[in-house]
Amino acid sequence: MPYFDAASTAPLHPVARQALLAALDEGWADPARLHRSGRQARMLLDAARETVAEALGARADEVSFTSSGTQALHSGLLGALRGHRRRGSHLLHSAVEHSAVLHTAERWAADGGSATAVPVDRHGRVSAAEFAAALRPDTALAVLQSANHEVGTLQPVAETAELLGGVPLLVDAAQSAGRLPVPAGWSLLTASAHKWGGPAGVGVLAVRKGVRFSSALPADEREGGRAPGFPNVPAIVAAAASLRAVRAEAEAENARLRELVDLVRHRVPELVPAVEVVGHPELRLPHLVTFSCLYVDGEVLLTGLDRAGFAASSGSSCTSSTLTPSHVLAAMGVLTEGNLRVSLPAGTTRAEVDAFLEVLPRVVAEVRAPLGLDLALPGSGPADGSADGPAGGSAAALVIDTLGKRCPVPIIELAKRVGEVAPGGLVAVLSDDEAARHDIPAWCGMCGHSYTGEAPAAEYGGGHGTAYLVTVRG
Amino acid sequence: MPYFDAASTAPLHPVARQALLAALDEGWADPARLHRSGRQARMLLDAARETVAEALGARADEVSFTSSGTQALHSGLLGALRGHRRRGSHLLHSAVEHSAVLHTAERWAADGGSATAVPVDRHGRVSAAEFAAALRPDTALAVLQSANHEVGTLQPVAETAELLGGVPLLVDAAQSAGRLPVPAGWSLLTASAHKWGGPAGVGVLAVRKGVRFSSALPADEREGGRAPGFPNVPAIVAAAASLRAVRAEAEAENARLRELVDLVRHRVPELVPAVEVVGHPELRLPHLVTFSCLYVDGEVLLTGLDRAGFAASSGSSCTSSTLTPSHVLAAMGVLTEGNLRVSLPAGTTRAEVDAFLEVLPRVVAEVRAPLGLDLALPGSGPADGSADGPAGGSAAALVIDTLGKRCPVPIIELAKRVGEVAPGGLVAVLSDDEAARHDIPAWCGMCGHSYTGEAPAAEYGGGHGTAYLVTVRG
Repeated sequence: MPYFDAASTAPLHPVARQALLAALDEGWADPARLHRSGRQARMLLDAARETVAEALGARADEVSFTSSGTQALHSGLLGALRGHRRRGSHLLHSAVEHSAVLHTAERWAADGGSATAVPVDRHGRVSAAEFAAALRPDTALAVLQSANHEVGTLQPVAETAELLGGVPLLVDAAQSAGRLPVPAGWSLLTASAHKWGGPAGVGVLAVRKGVRFSSALPADEREGGRAPGFPNVPAIVAAAASLRAVRAEAEAENARLRELVDLVRHRVPELVPAVEVVGHPELRLPHLVTFSCLYVDGEVLLTGLDRAGFAASSGSSCTSSTLTPSHVLAAMGVLTEGNLRVSLPAGTTRAEVDAFLEVLPRVVAEVRAPLGLDLALPGSGPADGSADGPAGGSAAALVIDTLGKRCPVPIIELAKRVGEVAPGGLVAVLSDDEAARHDIPAWCGMCGHSYTGEAPAAEYGGGHGTAYLVTVRG
Repeated sequence: MPYFDAASTAPLHPVARQALLAALDEGWADPARLHRSGRQARMLLDAARETVAEALGARADEVSFTSSGTQALHSGLLGALRGHRRRGSHLLHSAVEHSAVLHTAERWAADGGSATAVPVDRHGRVSAAEFAAALRPDTALAVLQSANHEVGTLQPVAETAELLGGVPLLVDAAQSAGRLPVPAGWSLLTASAHKWGGPAGVGVLAVRKGVRFSSALPADEREGGRAPGFPNVPAIVAAAASLRAVRAEAEAENARLRELVDLVRHRVPELVPAVEVVGHPELRLPHLVTFSCLYVDGEVLLTGLDRAGFAASSGSSCTSSTLTPSHVLAAMGVLTEGNLRVSLPAGTTRAEVDAFLEVLPRVVAEVRAPLGLDLALPGSGPADGSADGPAGGSAAALVIDTLGKRCPVPIIELAKRVGEVAPGGLVAVLSDDEAARHDIPAWCGMCGHSYTGEAPAAEYGGGHGTAYLVTVRG
């Protein structure tokens, strides 16, 4: 079964498996103990630390192993924030960081700190200048990912680092470590082994010599006081061995996967009507492509692909347990419905991608067929996510009540009925689904209509929820 | 090589290894994903949760998997304390809990809370009544281990739980889970898979339905919001499988190991002069025995045993990176020098224990031979750890200056020269080694002398440090 969800977790690299088995025999004991088994575990742990440090451009004594990338982010952010309290308590991060960063920022703000999310452009990329302009005198830490985990866009890390004037920068390299060189300029660096083909249970937190750090959790003597608890030596050994292996293969594999991803990027809009490919067209990860399909429920799409034998993932709200759409897609102002992330693991073949390109149009068409919609779009017009000004009272030519209905129903209803309204007329879509806030403007951008803003649904006869206002294209 | 350090980490159970290998193939994907590989991982994770819950007497939805026993303790303590803030901010725990508990208590107190350590008796056991008497109106959480990790003493958990009157009790079952039934009365329960023969990287945190809990770390959707980060499904599967396996073998194996431990408990004092076996003689773990050897450096002892092919561990200060003796031995008021913990893994044979009993006296004798001490003690007299009252000024008949010298030198010097002083005379030992504070009173108890208290070394001609005062036995 072709597995196109490497960005969630990569299949275990054969080298990782081999190293894990060997280290279960040789490195199972407590590396803090003085006996032979303990010393042996210690030697393996030290060697793994050297390997990972070398691969990431760090010193061995800068590297701590955590139990996940999430733990590395939590500990790294909170430890650096606590260590730099004298600077202040402001945290600066991009709007498209991993949810572990956003959760930490929320917690930090709730506990009395403050946090600013720097917006991204429609490709999901921050501007280094805009990022730096958001610095405050009390900024204690800046956080920027090397590449986005949902759309693959590379961030201008080195460029941004140069503008930070002494504020430490934590770089989340989870999606790029092992694939691409680590960008220059980090003060703290995090990564996650299972993203590069290592086993689950191993994260990396590197802290540059001299960067202040004060552990947020009660510390013990393990991992330089930065990651408490019994270390998982066999998994760490496997993580290091596979990092070395994937780095050695990276250049050739990146070139191969980039070609396959280019194929998907170019063929999908030709094969599937009403699709928006998102993420930066050039500055992106080699193995990952994301697109959204109008009028399609993300979960239905995943299920259809799964039945056809393809594993992928989605940032659509209907696929998340919180029923909110991906914060990355929302921050980009792109469509969140019918979203599909295709991330190719090492070894993906052209035949697998060809098979996917054959199956996808059929799956999407099957979902859309019952809707009876005209799918011919006037081409992806210029993005128009900005409101044209507040809409006047009840001037709508058409009110579409989708209250209580979930993504993608509001968009489907809008698409079905927008033809009833004359060019320049106003359509009000009443919705209480959070996804509509992102998807209706995105749909307008795709179809050439003008998104005109929002108002309380009550102004258009709805009891609760929001009225999203669309001016029909002329 | 006989491995007698199961309390640090047990060798991987064959069932764990087998389950881990299978789950690397079947459960490597992200259990939060909707595709087939994800659903498969999810099913394995759910089944493992059922197994562990059943083994621990919990409901599946009460069990979260953490990345270590330490993480389970940190998260469990802080989550319960935060969840019960309305009660107050006082934490009650025994003085002999795992260092992860003590570290958390220190952090909690530094952050504005308060913590009380309930003392233990000379066997390392708390009294349920004394524990309950330390409750305060603002006590938010009580913590008590099922059994001590250094000396094996069982704690009166169920008895204590009944006296807590609604204050939630966190039970650290790391040393007993899989071996002994979980004691009744817990509100939160923690354990660590690598202690029962599971792999590293898996801790258990169970929280009884209805017990308030507010995660101290930024939470995500994983593990009921109690253990953020990508779950290590293969290791969790292996942990559950091995827990089931060791439970099935526990009764027979406990009986077998208890006999071997009894052998060590009885033979060591016969074979090695000047030894104190510590921990409760009856209420104890079946597989663990701890003793201390007078006049011996713990690290030298471990090294000698390691050379002879035996792996064990020690709570002596010279074996810890902080150079402080085990807080457990210190709280018990027993000798910390020359300390050896022998913890037998499943499958230990009589022949291995016999070999150990042959090697140990030789190793100890080799260390002691150059000292030229009389090792015939007047039998372990009644413990006399209490001071007989403040000592008067410079009334010492003998001052022994060991300033700048580390454990076990102060005791060796004392033992060598105590014969110079007439019965009833006062000896002052000057020392700046933290271990002396515990070991000199313990030595007095073992040799029948009276420990008479401490005074500034300056009163006895020393520049800094402490004078430990001993009244020679009559």
